[in-house]
Amino acid sequence: MEVVLGIDIGGTYTKVGLVDRTGKIHFEDQIDTRGYTTIESFIEALHLHISERLVQLSNSFQMVGIGVGAPNGNYYTGSIENAPNLAWKGKINFVPLMERQFGIPAVVTNDANAAALGEMLFGHAGDHQNFIMITLGTGLGSGLVVNGNLIYGHDGFAGELGHVRAVDNGRACGCGKRGCLETYVSATGIKRTVFELLAIENMESEFRKIPFTKLKPSLITTLAEKGDPIAVMAFERTGFLLGRSLADSVAHISPSCIFLFGGLAKAGKWIIEPTKRSMEEHLLPIYRNKIDIVPSALLTKNIAVLGAAALIWNKLDQRG
Amino acid sequence: MEVVLGIDIGGTYTKVGLVDRTGKIHFEDQIDTRGYTTIESFIEALHLHISERLVQLSNSFQMVGIGVGAPNGNYYTGSIENAPNLAWKGKINFVPLMERQFGIPAVVTNDANAAALGEMLFGHAGDHQNFIMITLGTGLGSGLVVNGNLIYGHDGFAGELGHVRAVDNGRACGCGKRGCLETYVSATGIKRTVFELLAIENMESEFRKIPFTKLKPSLITTLAEKGDPIAVMAFERTGFLLGRSLADSVAHISPSCIFLFGGLAKAGKWIIEPTKRSMEEHLLPIYRNKIDIVPSALLTKNIAVLGAAALIWNKLDQRG
Repeated sequence: MEVVLGIDIGGTYTKVGLVDRTGKIHFEDQIDTRGYTTIESFIEALHLHISERLVQLSNSFQMVGIGVGAPNGNYYTGSIENAPNLAWKGKINFVPLMERQFGIPAVVTNDANAAALGEMLFGHAGDHQNFIMITLGTGLGSGLVVNGNLIYGHDGFAGELGHVRAVDNGRACGCGKRGCLETYVSATGIKRTVFELLAIENMESEFRKIPFTKLKPSLITTLAEKGDPIAVMAFERTGFLLGRSLADSVAHISPSCIFLFGGLAKAGKWIIEPTKRSMEEHLLPIYRNKIDIVPSALLTKNIAVLGAAALIWNKLDQRG
Repeated sequence: MEVVLGIDIGGTYTKVGLVDRTGKIHFEDQIDTRGYTTIESFIEALHLHISERLVQLSNSFQMVGIGVGAPNGNYYTGSIENAPNLAWKGKINFVPLMERQFGIPAVVTNDANAAALGEMLFGHAGDHQNFIMITLGTGLGSGLVVNGNLIYGHDGFAGELGHVRAVDNGRACGCGKRGCLETYVSATGIKRTVFELLAIENMESEFRKIPFTKLKPSLITTLAEKGDPIAVMAFERTGFLLGRSLADSVAHISPSCIFLFGGLAKAGKWIIEPTKRSMEEHLLPIYRNKIDIVPSALLTKNIAVLGAAALIWNKLDQRG
């Protein structure tokens, strides 16, 4: 059976999956992204890992292409350029390196673009020709879809909503600017908000016993459920800033739906409700009460792996 | 000769032109937009005016369609909905009213979208598949072009950059919100800035002799040329806010060029230079030093009339 390798490179883990034409994942796994000083050593380790698994699995899989979602991955040039959350700096000629190592065609795009494609093909975005995918991980990624097509922009770098100005002269961002949306709205961002609130407020909170380096973002949801006031306020504040920024994004492309994906999206109503309230409050009246904000339909699946796989299937089909 | 009627409805004047297939304007004129209490009386006056001119001109013109650019004009529904700068409130079924009065096919779109089409077909945007058109009039309008196509969004209302958040809790806007970009960056916006600066600063300025209601925006350019410090500061501040907002727009669609049109764009370097400086300063590094900000190639022509004309020619061609 012909399959493609879908890859989602994140700051911490790289997820891989063998995906057939129908979007069925026949095998999935992950390796550490960190610990490889050069991109070449990372690609070599990835190749070795996949080759071993392919032998173990069965001989009936024929791998015909590779689709990759990566931070700052550029569909046009095949490069990964200065990704703040990856160890390999500068402009990496990623696609040629992958094709040389694996001996099959490869394609790369931004990880959030891959997630948007995944939602469109295998999730709930089928009814939506105009939507925004927000991925909430270590940072905040986004994929913008207009008339059923991803926006790449003139240089392949469109859709970096993690770096719009959320707060004037705000928190320091990995990109070198201050006040970027992802410094507030992401797994890392909400952690920073919890610690800011511990300083500003003086109410009791479980968080007072946990050092910054030990706080797992999922705990914020757990404590919100238990009524911890700092946890509830942290979600309120995160949603306020996300909703306010999304109102401006709506003024650009007027989507019918906004999907949230990633760890923070799993918090469900805790993040969705304040976000929706704030977005509506900040929207121009003509846009009000007609845009959904919903969690991705594929919250528990690796949507970026699916999207990256779909991208390479597309490209293989075009080549005939 | 077959011509179409291109119309650009502004808050103060409505500009009209008879445009042939090649984009040549054979006749242009304008009527007041204000003074008509109902949309029906406005359309009737418009029809009478055009009919009289057609008779005067020659019998060789055959008018085959009408293209209209109007604030909040909706290409999908043919309506004009709650335009803050027009007297007719609510949702106006504009296209059917026009078609009944004139007896030929009509189409409407947002005035800034029409300007973007005009720039693409008859101006300097031919080389740019991804660009933003900013129209600076009474308010700030915008048309966003991605892969050579205008973005309409799911509801036809995409591209309202005049209403993104420029300043937290800032100036009151006609839309009901506060701090919208057009309250700072527009003919009205820069006037407000001049008067704010007269309050904040205490240096001598020609503006101290002029009441708010008498200040013409073109005078700000004239006085900047003469070195009036308030005029220079007003441009600096206007450009700062426009550039900062445009940096966020770039993070959405990554255009290769941004065109400025309208009265304020005629200020040339006075508005372009501070805008460019501020945009570069606020851009995510991957976008820096590759985006042009230039005045429209059609600054002295009515670009929205040309764009609206192009839109109806397109539609007539599709109908066969």
